[in-house]
Amino acid sequence: MELNARQYKILDIVKNNQPITGEEIAQKLNLTRATLRPDLSILTMSGLLEARPRVGYFYVDKGFTNITGDYLKKLKVGEVKSLPIVITEGQSIYEAIVTLFLEDVGTIYVVKDGFLSGVVSRKDLLKTTMGKANLETTPVDVVMTRLSHIIFVEEDSSVYEAIKKIINYQVDSLPVVKKVIVDGKEYLEVVGRFTKTNIAKLFLELAEGK
Amino acid sequence: MELNARQYKILDIVKNNQPITGEEIAQKLNLTRATLRPDLSILTMSGLLEARPRVGYFYVDKGFTNITGDYLKKLKVGEVKSLPIVITEGQSIYEAIVTLFLEDVGTIYVVKDGFLSGVVSRKDLLKTTMGKANLETTPVDVVMTRLSHIIFVEEDSSVYEAIKKIINYQVDSLPVVKKVIVDGKEYLEVVGRFTKTNIAKLFLELAEGK
Repeated sequence: MELNARQYKILDIVKNNQPITGEEIAQKLNLTRATLRPDLSILTMSGLLEARPRVGYFYVDKGFTNITGDYLKKLKVGEVKSLPIVITEGQSIYEAIVTLFLEDVGTIYVVKDGFLSGVVSRKDLLKTTMGKANLETTPVDVVMTRLSHIIFVEEDSSVYEAIKKIINYQVDSLPVVKKVIVDGKEYLEVVGRFTKTNIAKLFLELAEGK
Repeated sequence: MELNARQYKILDIVKNNQPITGEEIAQKLNLTRATLRPDLSILTMSGLLEARPRVGYFYVDKGFTNITGDYLKKLKVGEVKSLPIVITEGQSIYEAIVTLFLEDVGTIYVVKDGFLSGVVSRKDLLKTTMGKANLETTPVDVVMTRLSHIIFVEEDSSVYEAIKKIINYQVDSLPVVKKVIVDGKEYLEVVGRFTKTNIAKLFLELAEGK
């Protein structure tokens, strides 16, 4: 949205004097109502001003907002997700830590029979190493967050929803899953991960116009 | 930017047929050129279409981008930063880990004589606990990232620049510092931290219009 100098002046006048009629805006600018008409149309149709009949113009501070919100609500997690890093239930805590460093990720997913059974983070592992467990013989299932407590998203969840979950549940990443029904029971297949890094990259890409 | 149905149609036509004259667009819509004039003005002044004399209209895919980019370039790190969590050089690795858990942060800053001297992350600490060091007697300075390798921002750095540093240097957070000159030497006072969580929250706030 590229506004000209006069349109910015009009926005300022409306912000400070709302509601204000077109006639009053014209007076403040020493211009005729007719001269201002195209500017006021642009500002109204862009959603920056709201015109109420017999009342005047109001400033609407949502031009930017709606665009970002609409975009994040339309964008699917599947379009921006990263590859999941996975280990198997029964592998040791030591193996989990090695995997975490090798892959340089903050969270790894634990699977059993191919389906998600737990999540283990750097924080979980740091806590564990401070304890007395034998890292090489204790299975990772002992320290992982179990399925019932895992917050996840699906590939067709919106990015907006995913960001909201990350903030509200204070987690660093979410497993991206596909629901699979086997013998009438629902299982979660891990198909990706959605992280705060994905969010930061997306924000930067938008800002850079990619 | 709220466009009406006809304006969206025009954008589609231009995207698929550019460059295209106003007359040609009008023909495709079975409308007169005069009827389309206000729509074309809106789209051009919004920066969504570009009109080149004697050539026609082009689609400009940057309406959204510029707004996000401009916003992040204007917004200062000081406006969105979090409080820094700090320990003193000479405190033990064990104390660093306890601080990390108590404050529930991913990174803590190490200071000496009140100025930044190092950064220590969950990842550094996890690596340390896997080694042979005595956590209670080894000072945190042994495992921290030293000043010369620390990527930081200042309070009046733009959020855009901060996000870029986080992505490019693959770090989870940046110390926000104030430069102080003492006896002709420059020191960094830690006044905040800027994290991926700040980025995610900012993105969400924009999307929700706060």
